[in-house]
Amino acid sequence: MKNYKGYLIDLDGTMYRGNEVIPEAIPFVNQLAQRNIPYVFVTNNSTKSTQEVAEKLNQLGIQADYNQIVTSSMATAKYLQDQSVKSCYCIGQSGLKEPIREHGIQLTDSTDVDAVVVGLDRDINYDKLATACIAIRKGARFISTNRDHAIPTEAGMGPGNGAFTALVQTSTQQNPVFIGKPDTIIMKEALDVLGFPKEDVLMVGDNYQTDIQSGFNAGVDTLFVHTGVTSKEELAAFEEQPTYIIENLLEWTFE
Amino acid sequence: MKNYKGYLIDLDGTMYRGNEVIPEAIPFVNQLAQRNIPYVFVTNNSTKSTQEVAEKLNQLGIQADYNQIVTSSMATAKYLQDQSVKSCYCIGQSGLKEPIREHGIQLTDSTDVDAVVVGLDRDINYDKLATACIAIRKGARFISTNRDHAIPTEAGMGPGNGAFTALVQTSTQQNPVFIGKPDTIIMKEALDVLGFPKEDVLMVGDNYQTDIQSGFNAGVDTLFVHTGVTSKEELAAFEEQPTYIIENLLEWTFE
Repeated sequence: MKNYKGYLIDLDGTMYRGNEVIPEAIPFVNQLAQRNIPYVFVTNNSTKSTQEVAEKLNQLGIQADYNQIVTSSMATAKYLQDQSVKSCYCIGQSGLKEPIREHGIQLTDSTDVDAVVVGLDRDINYDKLATACIAIRKGARFISTNRDHAIPTEAGMGPGNGAFTALVQTSTQQNPVFIGKPDTIIMKEALDVLGFPKEDVLMVGDNYQTDIQSGFNAGVDTLFVHTGVTSKEELAAFEEQPTYIIENLLEWTFE
Repeated sequence: MKNYKGYLIDLDGTMYRGNEVIPEAIPFVNQLAQRNIPYVFVTNNSTKSTQEVAEKLNQLGIQADYNQIVTSSMATAKYLQDQSVKSCYCIGQSGLKEPIREHGIQLTDSTDVDAVVVGLDRDINYDKLATACIAIRKGARFISTNRDHAIPTEAGMGPGNGAFTALVQTSTQQNPVFIGKPDTIIMKEALDVLGFPKEDVLMVGDNYQTDIQSGFNAGVDTLFVHTGVTSKEELAAFEEQPTYIIENLLEWTFE
């Protein structure tokens, strides 16, 4: 086993499930802190700010500072800035709109914009979706925070941002740039925050199709933990396997 | 040219554009009426009742009775009845919900239903989409009124029902049964109303991908008219060509 200089860590299914901490996550993160091994949490959630995510982790007993959080919102805002986008129509909640605004990009309801960003919005309506489609038909770039198909709601699995993105994609016949896991833009951002080359970093997560594939796509070694969504049968069926597979994070040894 | 015993006729782009009649449509329909050739209008619109559609046509000067209208809503309601569906969760407007109710099917907000119907709903929201996804995950059949990608709105081309269907499809990973053109269920219904075998019927329309393909799929001859959405360049690019191509409906000779 390699000694990794930095860790990228998924949240839901790896650190907690909904509002309950996964007990083995606490000593795992404590070990990283005690050993002064830098770690960054990487989440496709675009509805919460980095401060809100850090607060939730702290309340659950997990050491985290807001500057150790990379959300798909933050990665989206940085991407728009890197691409010199000046104006943007955004479907999404304040956790997405605020970072975009803070990166100096004008948010507007106009369909004459440089870019359309589609993120999860529980207050979605027809006019918002129509505005996005019309702006893209007029030539705006099409950016989606992430391709997650489903998210847990009170009543069961509701549509995730990937489903809303598919709606806009189907209507406009244009393909988006995806920011979040398993795509690489969020991983590049997280590696930049960590400050190590990809060979020295380990990606930790429970979801094969987001966390583990994001590691493959970014060229980062992967640690799969069986505390979340991907079952043993599902994992075994995939051709490309994670670098390491463990039952829970207590099994991980740091050297 | 064959003497067709019955005609199936598209509406938008063939009889009218938005709220303006296409002038050549009036004498064309008058000819059918004078010659006692039965005709039925076939529309993917699921938001209006057959009465409302007939009234609109009459106001534009086109002879039509409500029992000469087949909407995707009406075809959906008949299909549900044929399939012995007892309970249904429906996304859609009153033009879709009323025929379903009139066919003796219980409409409910429960996720424990025999079927989910997805039709266009300008009052769409997250909870409606989540209810549809959850019911389908629990095993409800998935039915969509039509696969139209886009519809005209005041501001430009907004998402059509095919885009909302793609959202549910992406989230649940289940494929729907489509009722409307170019799929065959609505055509079977329209042929039943007309009462002639498909060899004796002509399908008239302006949209290659809905009207003309519905003819191909149902085994009905097709008359393409250049008064609507499909341009000459677009039409020429398709491998399978309509039976007849005309500039406008005045060019059509009945014998």
